[in-house]
Amino acid sequence: MSFIATPEFLHFPQALPLQSGASIRDYTLAYETYGSLNAERSNAVLVCHALNASHHVAGVYAGQDKSEGWWNNMIGPGKPVDTNRFFVIGINNLGSCFGSTGPMHTNPDTGQVYGADFPVLTVEDWVNAQARLLDHLGVQQLAAVLGGSLGGMQALSWTLQYPERVRHAVVVASAPNLNAENIAFNEVARRAIVTDPDFHGGHFYQHGVVPKRGLRIARMIGHITYLSDDVMNEKFGRQLREGLTLKYSTQDIEFQIESYLRYQGDKFSEYFDANTYLLITRALDYFDPARAFGGNLSQALARATAQFLLVSFSTDWRFSPQRSREIVKALLDNRRDVSYAEIDAPHGHDAFLLDDARYLNLIRAYFERIAKEFA
Amino acid sequence: MSFIATPEFLHFPQALPLQSGASIRDYTLAYETYGSLNAERSNAVLVCHALNASHHVAGVYAGQDKSEGWWNNMIGPGKPVDTNRFFVIGINNLGSCFGSTGPMHTNPDTGQVYGADFPVLTVEDWVNAQARLLDHLGVQQLAAVLGGSLGGMQALSWTLQYPERVRHAVVVASAPNLNAENIAFNEVARRAIVTDPDFHGGHFYQHGVVPKRGLRIARMIGHITYLSDDVMNEKFGRQLREGLTLKYSTQDIEFQIESYLRYQGDKFSEYFDANTYLLITRALDYFDPARAFGGNLSQALARATAQFLLVSFSTDWRFSPQRSREIVKALLDNRRDVSYAEIDAPHGHDAFLLDDARYLNLIRAYFERIAKEFA
Repeated sequence: MSFIATPEFLHFPQALPLQSGASIRDYTLAYETYGSLNAERSNAVLVCHALNASHHVAGVYAGQDKSEGWWNNMIGPGKPVDTNRFFVIGINNLGSCFGSTGPMHTNPDTGQVYGADFPVLTVEDWVNAQARLLDHLGVQQLAAVLGGSLGGMQALSWTLQYPERVRHAVVVASAPNLNAENIAFNEVARRAIVTDPDFHGGHFYQHGVVPKRGLRIARMIGHITYLSDDVMNEKFGRQLREGLTLKYSTQDIEFQIESYLRYQGDKFSEYFDANTYLLITRALDYFDPARAFGGNLSQALARATAQFLLVSFSTDWRFSPQRSREIVKALLDNRRDVSYAEIDAPHGHDAFLLDDARYLNLIRAYFERIAKEFA
Repeated sequence: MSFIATPEFLHFPQALPLQSGASIRDYTLAYETYGSLNAERSNAVLVCHALNASHHVAGVYAGQDKSEGWWNNMIGPGKPVDTNRFFVIGINNLGSCFGSTGPMHTNPDTGQVYGADFPVLTVEDWVNAQARLLDHLGVQQLAAVLGGSLGGMQALSWTLQYPERVRHAVVVASAPNLNAENIAFNEVARRAIVTDPDFHGGHFYQHGVVPKRGLRIARMIGHITYLSDDVMNEKFGRQLREGLTLKYSTQDIEFQIESYLRYQGDKFSEYFDANTYLLITRALDYFDPARAFGGNLSQALARATAQFLLVSFSTDWRFSPQRSREIVKALLDNRRDVSYAEIDAPHGHDAFLLDDARYLNLIRAYFERIAKEFA
């Protein structure tokens, strides 16, 4: 039985200045909290999300048994991040499409739907927006900030933008920036969306259409990069969808892997916002804390004072263990307190969301250590 | 100075039965030959091509200095495959779009352009069509059949379909079949093409349009898989296209890698046929000589009597060295004569087309050995 989660919404009338020089005002953030903030306000944990996730991190919505949060195996009563001890906060990032203000909402300056005019956001902007929400919740300092993939980048950025507000950062299956191949995959996905005739330059809302073709392609590409070669071969291999006979068709589904990818693409295109896809992949592309230091990550991370846990997965080829090790090395160059685990797991990048006993126990042990600090 | 190559065209009135059960009649194959067939007819080398290549393997066309064949560094007078010694044959595969009969031609049964109705072809069908052309050229037995990537699959298939007609097979950067990830990338590319509104179910010719959006996406995906992570980082890294300032745009080009991919996609969409793309990627998907043997590659290769050279490249993640080693192992299980080289090269799958001294010298040495057999 999962516990009941309840989304909340906070409106921010004051403009948030963005890294691009633009700003956004009159925005709303959707968020959820689990557990209770202790009297010392020292047990708060912020969970940052990746591309296709939200503030709904754990629990289920009342009356919706299947609505488990995206990290429900990690967070909850008695879970590795135990909500009996920690006050856990999930926030839907600005520009996303799950409750916070995004491209499908109305621009207060024009009265029109933002669409492609929604300001371009960065990881740093998200962290600033999250910090304002924490102010509202009365959380001055986080016991920990935790995230996987793009969420891990936010966790890392927290330690640089607000070093005094973070005691621990847990950065899972992440990277200090995207490499050329990562950017390349993002760009192909974006081109598929932008060149879909139903995209209408990002203003498809008023045409009553959705660029589903592009979203499907984007999602199919994404899924390939989330899985390892090994797990794809194990799950699908060269299995035909129907029996043993080839159809000799270029357009019909022949192999199981095709069926899987089309299904994932179709599903995604039903609910994900195309402009949000562009915004979030661009935030990924831009993230690069070393950039302001001529590419020197050690210098970039000198500001961080938190203690760190880095976790990577052996078969993750999107953000390989090597990328986590770069962060570890840069932190060690600064004599920071860093723990690092490379989990031997077959599932590729997806592993950070899956049940792997060694991984879940590792996170549990780390949070037990954190809990001792305020117990 | 490259030598002058001249394309030739041979019409086949007799129907070619295809693996699908369909057949194709009144088709033409474009081909080129370099060097001379010796009196014993023992020095012929067939070069098989991959997706985006043709019968124009080497040399240049008269008056077109920049029209070098796609393997001009490998084949020609004094080159590793020396046309002073060997009679080299390049054939454009059926269904391709560079001169042989393909989807853009007229179906003699209907008087209409084939379009999506062009029969689905397999590697085995191509080999059968190539064998007929060799009959016409008076080549009963090949000194060698040589190919990279999909071309390597054809070379391998030659040794199984016509074991008595092949003395040596040189299989470069290839695989005994596609794995799930390879099929997945093909499927995304196909979906991008098929769902482009300008595809018109494969009958775009009569609409006077070309599904360029889909072709661009397909080619961008292809390019990512042809390059290694390392070479992409070295060539492009996170370099911005314009100076040092970010534009904060989701649709404009920001990084060099984006510029490169868009350029490659645009160029490709100008000349490559969309139905051909579907056909060739499907032939790749289907190739699997072990299939008829319950997946047992050793049993499948028992028919081969040729001597083999297998070559792979360390950073090729499309057809990794592991895939070549599977072929080597299966041949050794049958006590065949096999040489195998794993070239430590940074360029990924593309390496098989590039100048790498160790690789070119290896092929040279192997063909010198072959030449001694008839010298």
